[in-house]
Amino acid sequence: MQEEIRKTADEILSLVGEGKLSSLRPLVSEMNPADLAEIMEELKENELPLFYRILPKELASEVFSYMEPDLQELLIRSFSDRELAAVIKDMYLDDTVDMIEEMPASVVVRILQNTDPAARKQINELLQYPQDSAGSLMTLEYVSLREDMTVEEAFARIRREGVDKETVYTCYVTNRRRLVGIVTVKDLLLADYETKVSEIMTDSDSVISVGAYEDRDAVVQAFSKYDLMALPVVDKEDRILGIVTVDDAVDVMEEEATEDIEKMAAIIPTDKSYFKTGIFETFRKRFPWLMLLMVSATFTGGIITSFEGALGKFPVLVAFIPMLMGTGGNAGGQASVTIIRGLALGEIEMRQVLRVIWKELRVALVCGVALAIAGFLKIILIDNLIMGTGVSMLESVTVCITMLLTVIVSKIFGGLLPVVAKRMGFDPAVMASPFITTLVDAISLLIYFTVASLILPM
Amino acid sequence: MQEEIRKTADEILSLVGEGKLSSLRPLVSEMNPADLAEIMEELKENELPLFYRILPKELASEVFSYMEPDLQELLIRSFSDRELAAVIKDMYLDDTVDMIEEMPASVVVRILQNTDPAARKQINELLQYPQDSAGSLMTLEYVSLREDMTVEEAFARIRREGVDKETVYTCYVTNRRRLVGIVTVKDLLLADYETKVSEIMTDSDSVISVGAYEDRDAVVQAFSKYDLMALPVVDKEDRILGIVTVDDAVDVMEEEATEDIEKMAAIIPTDKSYFKTGIFETFRKRFPWLMLLMVSATFTGGIITSFEGALGKFPVLVAFIPMLMGTGGNAGGQASVTIIRGLALGEIEMRQVLRVIWKELRVALVCGVALAIAGFLKIILIDNLIMGTGVSMLESVTVCITMLLTVIVSKIFGGLLPVVAKRMGFDPAVMASPFITTLVDAISLLIYFTVASLILPM
Repeated sequence: MQEEIRKTADEILSLVGEGKLSSLRPLVSEMNPADLAEIMEELKENELPLFYRILPKELASEVFSYMEPDLQELLIRSFSDRELAAVIKDMYLDDTVDMIEEMPASVVVRILQNTDPAARKQINELLQYPQDSAGSLMTLEYVSLREDMTVEEAFARIRREGVDKETVYTCYVTNRRRLVGIVTVKDLLLADYETKVSEIMTDSDSVISVGAYEDRDAVVQAFSKYDLMALPVVDKEDRILGIVTVDDAVDVMEEEATEDIEKMAAIIPTDKSYFKTGIFETFRKRFPWLMLLMVSATFTGGIITSFEGALGKFPVLVAFIPMLMGTGGNAGGQASVTIIRGLALGEIEMRQVLRVIWKELRVALVCGVALAIAGFLKIILIDNLIMGTGVSMLESVTVCITMLLTVIVSKIFGGLLPVVAKRMGFDPAVMASPFITTLVDAISLLIYFTVASLILPM
Repeated sequence: MQEEIRKTADEILSLVGEGKLSSLRPLVSEMNPADLAEIMEELKENELPLFYRILPKELASEVFSYMEPDLQELLIRSFSDRELAAVIKDMYLDDTVDMIEEMPASVVVRILQNTDPAARKQINELLQYPQDSAGSLMTLEYVSLREDMTVEEAFARIRREGVDKETVYTCYVTNRRRLVGIVTVKDLLLADYETKVSEIMTDSDSVISVGAYEDRDAVVQAFSKYDLMALPVVDKEDRILGIVTVDDAVDVMEEEATEDIEKMAAIIPTDKSYFKTGIFETFRKRFPWLMLLMVSATFTGGIITSFEGALGKFPVLVAFIPMLMGTGGNAGGQASVTIIRGLALGEIEMRQVLRVIWKELRVALVCGVALAIAGFLKIILIDNLIMGTGVSMLESVTVCITMLLTVIVSKIFGGLLPVVAKRMGFDPAVMASPFITTLVDAISLLIYFTVASLILPM
């Protein structure tokens, strides 16, 4: 929260605490609904309905649609049927659907009972699309025009129907529900009143659209690539079903980035914010990967055990294990995370896998050689000269060759595994640092002991 | 690229290869400029200017503004002065500025020479804002209205000036350049022609704006929180300097997420895409962290060396090192990445650091106990019963207590360090898995050997 808003928020909260509800009105009516929704998060449960009823009527439903689902539920439980019906009527259809998806069944039933039949039908229609599909993000409230309308008629329709539409700035030209083109209000404003819509519309051939069952990734990529304000969602016959607006795409973009980041950190994604997630829920999101990776790491331990003989003969080798495993994990993590992000943004395509490997191989060679030389100098200058550890030349060479090979193998695995995961239908993001690190730990040890057995007199 | 577009792209590329430029026109004119820009990436250097000249004139400059800087530079070098002037004239001011920021000095001079004086003055004005500031993202091309205008007069001005403006849908009501309110085209469309703008505008008190020198993070957070189409940028006296449009905010949002992800993977961020970054540039982005973390990891090795005595007496302890270090790193990485993302999205605020620690402590207790028990069972049932490793009861207890303590310490460090980094003015994202892992590696070993020396008969 910005400082200024934080100050007003604290003022509001203290007034609520003192029960001075009437002095709240002037403060509240100047605020942005999104900020008010955030302030309400900090109210006590019993203060919530009282506070909500102070909000000016035209502001109240907007604030409501910005609130987190848990607060919405609390409020709905305090609403009379009439209050509930009024809020639902004022909300945009897609916001209502988003809310319904988060509510327990009993609340859903009450919401639907207090929605008028036409809207209820539309809500049910929207609810049938799979979560994370383009269809689940869309709204049915868009302005549609006909080709043979004049600009004047188009404006008349926008004025008549626009109040309830989420966006009026892109209008969809349809013919028996088939999308034949789009026309923006800017196009309309800059044209003469007598011009036909068909003359100024962008033909449907060059209109970007998305199928209702496509993943929401496709929606986000279209918005970011084509700089859109709204994206039409169509069925297989190119009939327009609804539109996704840019504000919803922005939210999805943030959610997707968060999900990817969580997966990369070996966390099962959640769409709740940090403090909204309970201790045991957080545990359930974090434990499975920790457990899996812990078990995998015991194999690495097994490798050490099986080379106990070599380690007994050259005990100094043990001291380099963390450095070799750590560097391998980091090098592999760098590669995998770069590839995962490139795949997510569409910068890297599946068919480019060989180019990826070729690039990672060359980067790994440069990095590996540089690290091996740095490691060698460090052993000679710091460990031996200053610390007097007494690492032999052959032992140093063993460590440095292992370093080079580990970096190469790690970078190639890091570059390859996300692509393989995607081809097999898994999410590439799980192939990030924690997974690569655990895998590379084992591989780097195998390389280490193999190199040692070749170079050192066993 | 979508399959359908990929097919057209391949067709276009093969026609270019065969030199059949004239048969390209119908194919090209149906395509979206963003796709054409992407296809041009795949052309040979000498084909590029030829292809560009085939594009219909009204499409050409739009395609140009979607192209990557390296291709833009190639094209500019092939342009005559007149061609260059025409392209610059058609581009939006903020796109021109973005392009100039990426060009070598000689090209910049040529661009400015071929820009008309008024636009040149504006470009120079925009170029003075620091990179990554709100000012550097804005455009000066917005529609401004006066309070005393009627809706009819407002529409007249939009029609007159709107052609060159990036967005006409939010208009800014100013009084001697001070922002007094905003009015949307939707508001205007739904009002009577005689209504005064002052009656339907949103008062500047509730208008969200951002200072020109604020970080672009603030821009992104405003767009995502308040569902905006455009955000006015103001100076200290609340005078409007320009606006940021949502399509640019979307691009920044993606760039910021990518940057954070790269930092979390111990990579120095770059704004070039994967294949555009050369081998040595990729090396320079990855090597510094690898080197730093490698050197840090040698301390961990030093800890092992200093406990060589204990390890000699209980050699089985070595086999558990990877599991303990790995789990500690993963547990700490989960916490730090969650906190870093929460800070970036504004879900977690600096003053909530104690709440973060308290939550991480409890999650760590649950995770730690569960992992310790799982580890104990695994040692007893698998290692001893099935594999016959012969880990003693005291050794098992040592491992499990270390596991619990390591998870607790890791999660607290993971929760704390991003917040500390932010308070000290560093980017919290560098406190992610690789850094935490390296730190936790050392800490977990210290805990391990301390616990061992307390429990085992040394």
